[in-house]
Amino acid sequence: MKIFLAQQNYHIGNFESNTAKIIDAVRQAKQQGGDLIIFSELAVCGYPPRDFLEFNDFIEQSLDAVNKIAQEADTIGVIVGAPSHNPTKEGKDLFNSAYLLYGKEVKAVAHKTLLPTYDIFDEYRYFEPGLERSVWEFKGKRLAVTVCEDIWNLDDNPLYRICPMDELVQQRPDIMVNISASPFDYAQAQERLSIVKRNVAKYKIPMIYCNTVGSQTEIVFDGGSVVMDTHENLVVELPYFSEELAYVELREDNSFVQPVVRKAADIPDSAPMPKSFEPNLGIELIHDALITGIRDYFSKMGFTKAIIASSGGIDSAVTLALACHALGSGNVRALLMPSQYSTGHSVDDAVQLSENLENHFDILPIKSVFEEYRQALGPIFKNLPFNVAEENLQSRIRGTLVMALSNKFGSILLNTSNKSELATGYGTLYGDMAGGLGVLGDLYKMQVYALAEYINRDGEIIPRNIIDKAPSAELREGQKDSDSLPEYNLLDPILYQYIERRQGPKEIIAQGFDAALVARILRMVNVNEYKRNQFCPIIRVSPKAFGVGRRMPIVGKYLS
Amino acid sequence: MKIFLAQQNYHIGNFESNTAKIIDAVRQAKQQGGDLIIFSELAVCGYPPRDFLEFNDFIEQSLDAVNKIAQEADTIGVIVGAPSHNPTKEGKDLFNSAYLLYGKEVKAVAHKTLLPTYDIFDEYRYFEPGLERSVWEFKGKRLAVTVCEDIWNLDDNPLYRICPMDELVQQRPDIMVNISASPFDYAQAQERLSIVKRNVAKYKIPMIYCNTVGSQTEIVFDGGSVVMDTHENLVVELPYFSEELAYVELREDNSFVQPVVRKAADIPDSAPMPKSFEPNLGIELIHDALITGIRDYFSKMGFTKAIIASSGGIDSAVTLALACHALGSGNVRALLMPSQYSTGHSVDDAVQLSENLENHFDILPIKSVFEEYRQALGPIFKNLPFNVAEENLQSRIRGTLVMALSNKFGSILLNTSNKSELATGYGTLYGDMAGGLGVLGDLYKMQVYALAEYINRDGEIIPRNIIDKAPSAELREGQKDSDSLPEYNLLDPILYQYIERRQGPKEIIAQGFDAALVARILRMVNVNEYKRNQFCPIIRVSPKAFGVGRRMPIVGKYLS
Repeated sequence: MKIFLAQQNYHIGNFESNTAKIIDAVRQAKQQGGDLIIFSELAVCGYPPRDFLEFNDFIEQSLDAVNKIAQEADTIGVIVGAPSHNPTKEGKDLFNSAYLLYGKEVKAVAHKTLLPTYDIFDEYRYFEPGLERSVWEFKGKRLAVTVCEDIWNLDDNPLYRICPMDELVQQRPDIMVNISASPFDYAQAQERLSIVKRNVAKYKIPMIYCNTVGSQTEIVFDGGSVVMDTHENLVVELPYFSEELAYVELREDNSFVQPVVRKAADIPDSAPMPKSFEPNLGIELIHDALITGIRDYFSKMGFTKAIIASSGGIDSAVTLALACHALGSGNVRALLMPSQYSTGHSVDDAVQLSENLENHFDILPIKSVFEEYRQALGPIFKNLPFNVAEENLQSRIRGTLVMALSNKFGSILLNTSNKSELATGYGTLYGDMAGGLGVLGDLYKMQVYALAEYINRDGEIIPRNIIDKAPSAELREGQKDSDSLPEYNLLDPILYQYIERRQGPKEIIAQGFDAALVARILRMVNVNEYKRNQFCPIIRVSPKAFGVGRRMPIVGKYLS
Repeated sequence: MKIFLAQQNYHIGNFESNTAKIIDAVRQAKQQGGDLIIFSELAVCGYPPRDFLEFNDFIEQSLDAVNKIAQEADTIGVIVGAPSHNPTKEGKDLFNSAYLLYGKEVKAVAHKTLLPTYDIFDEYRYFEPGLERSVWEFKGKRLAVTVCEDIWNLDDNPLYRICPMDELVQQRPDIMVNISASPFDYAQAQERLSIVKRNVAKYKIPMIYCNTVGSQTEIVFDGGSVVMDTHENLVVELPYFSEELAYVELREDNSFVQPVVRKAADIPDSAPMPKSFEPNLGIELIHDALITGIRDYFSKMGFTKAIIASSGGIDSAVTLALACHALGSGNVRALLMPSQYSTGHSVDDAVQLSENLENHFDILPIKSVFEEYRQALGPIFKNLPFNVAEENLQSRIRGTLVMALSNKFGSILLNTSNKSELATGYGTLYGDMAGGLGVLGDLYKMQVYALAEYINRDGEIIPRNIIDKAPSAELREGQKDSDSLPEYNLLDPILYQYIERRQGPKEIIAQGFDAALVARILRMVNVNEYKRNQFCPIIRVSPKAFGVGRRMPIVGKYLS
């Protein structure tokens, strides 16, 4: 049996383009004599569709698309993900389903049983868990078809009461098929491979695992679809972050014609996230995820041009380099907005950066506007001393200027704030926190440095001086980040424990960190929830990003 | 048996103050010879605790608080809500529980079975549904204790497969006790009463229903706790939006000593939200909810002072009046920032308003700053015509000025955007969309007018001219809202169908609305998701507010 895997990039709610893309792959597979083609979870409507699922019209359009795809499934079987109606009165009205289309009709539907409802996932908000699980007979093979999370319940402390494959294996399947929309983070790619391996090891049958690819606002799907034989060797391993159509030939005895591309011994049995902060971990994949995140945000929103406030600092430099890579330097403009507190080298460094990247830049000093504001505010501020109000004012002047260019030229502002700043509230709302997409918002400062080195791996793109100098917001004379924040090599590891690993103060202090410092940092994180709440979407590259996957009370009074 | 209900306002994660408040009520009840006192859902930690629940430290503090309260529960029983550990390996690690404390120990724990996971609710994100349900024996009475949603599964199309009271009633309880954290919306108060009535009618035993009160960022809890006898009459009905301690005496035959305060005939059997938009519906309760929302946001964040950009328009006028009511006029400052496009009467009206309200105001024209920006931008903008960039620039100058005062004087900026504007994207990010709390963000423009009339019910607070004049952003010569938007009496009803009632284009057009207009409005809503995503929390007064309860894809391509 010749089985195709289609690793594709869908657009949420764009039934026309998703259906066309799916049908195109079905036709290619048919031309090549395919018996079966497999698409990912909720491929028809895109994942995650969120509250669009609450509209009957949306579900009807999705069901129409499934029927349209079914018309192409004549001699070839198609397994594709889409929502389906729950016919019973009790429970949520929808299932998250895998359809088997064949002979131009829907032959079978399997419903996802385990509905991830944590971090960025909200599936029980929409879906009822599947009640029954049945193996499908197809062209002489027995397929155990599951959806994403259904194969993940193998922990010692499982999140769910049911393990769907434990039931399906009783029905003697020949092969497991899992359709997924499993997002990237730097710890996930290895963990996902190890989960496939653990399922194959447990159930002693091969698995075809088909994942989606591409970015949906903040969530990046990395692909990496695989086919694993009974001996836990990979016979297909699709690339990360790109669309791909591939196939395997399954023999009578459920072995594959294809040669092994990666041996079982080279695949980890488990790959949990590290217990302590490792700034260089997965930096290459993080880089590619950010490129995908920028590129897909623009293409799916119908934008082409970006603008970045380029300060001569490391964050804006890395953001600018990524944007030029993702969108082409011709589509990216930098705006340099020195103040009276900016050092001369800041402008020089930012100019050098744009010359290296060959992107357009303008220089627009903010001093005259700043003076005009101070004069206007004079009668109200009177003789009150220069303080955070004037610092924020400069940041907001920059935000206003760069948004003026954004509006005038149709260039989307990319935000350059990093995770260390966002965590501690070291940023100005409507100032440097402005922007349509947060490129570095899920990278701690030390990861931004690691990424800068990676960007420079084949030669200097980001000027050395930008990497080497002490970080500063340059909002008052001689200001340094370290005036307000702990040094990043202390700050970042503590933030990692609190945010990614959800350790409380006791556990973090037990690791050897200073108690007062831990209390100070955790308090900074908690009292700045209100700022992050107004921040733009952040491209997610870690297991716990600020944004939709981390939901904290604003009026809460805890560790604060 | 003398049973107390404590309708209290908690602070999320503030175990110290919550515990003190609970213990204070327990002591009062003991002094008055109480046998039992009932507190609301998750009272100990505050509702909703969100991802604080993922921290062991938070759960431990909550369990410690429960034990501390238990020490007060000697001769009196205490029923109180708090999280508890799920002792089985499978499933989520927590339950959302009701504790019975008595004889200084935990006598029983009942777990919430139905976990609301829709709109603003995320309970399955944290909790495992209760597996077993048992009636509690207490001082000779059999209590069927449930938590909030557990009594709501009575629809024809129930959201859950299980109805907990159907099981509990088999164990012959004398009385139902439901502890809730049930939030306000203008359709909810009546609906909640009708749910209590339907449970009493179905199970033929009385119910004690204890709700929390007070606001948690965007979610307002309105209280309205009740005791209903077997004949569906209310014998206790606590007020909305205020804390209260009350009691009933339950006789041997499960009747109450207290007289009926509201007859069954006066309580609706059901009160669903209206099928078409009614701008005046519940405007008095909405007013009180907004006052609570403002007041609790400030008190729980530790703020006292507010600032509002006062334009002379209806939205800022209503916001200013509400803020002065909630915080005291002495704590509220208005900033008038006329531009060259502002009409003279705008300033006069805004001045008159502040004179009526007796709050401090400043006038700060934006012209000179605007001219300075235009000069600075001149070399880049060259001869490009005045357009939305210059309009937004003025709005952002105002945002920057009012934030400068906010920072300088420690006054929190209250946002004045209404739901019609937020829906259609008729606002400027970092300009008039700035602010810490959205006061009117869940009120359509026509509701804002209704609220203005309500505020003026005993005399003119908001000058008549502000209510009567045509709305305008005054960002260019002679601008009117109706240049960009449909008239509000067309716009608001269509938005209501799409947002509150989740009707698709076909259903809305079938109601008689113009097809092109419907398509235009739905498109405006969907393409502006990115703007709302960066908006501050909105005090929720409707069944579907923008914010945490409405989760839409940003890169989605649906009806857009």
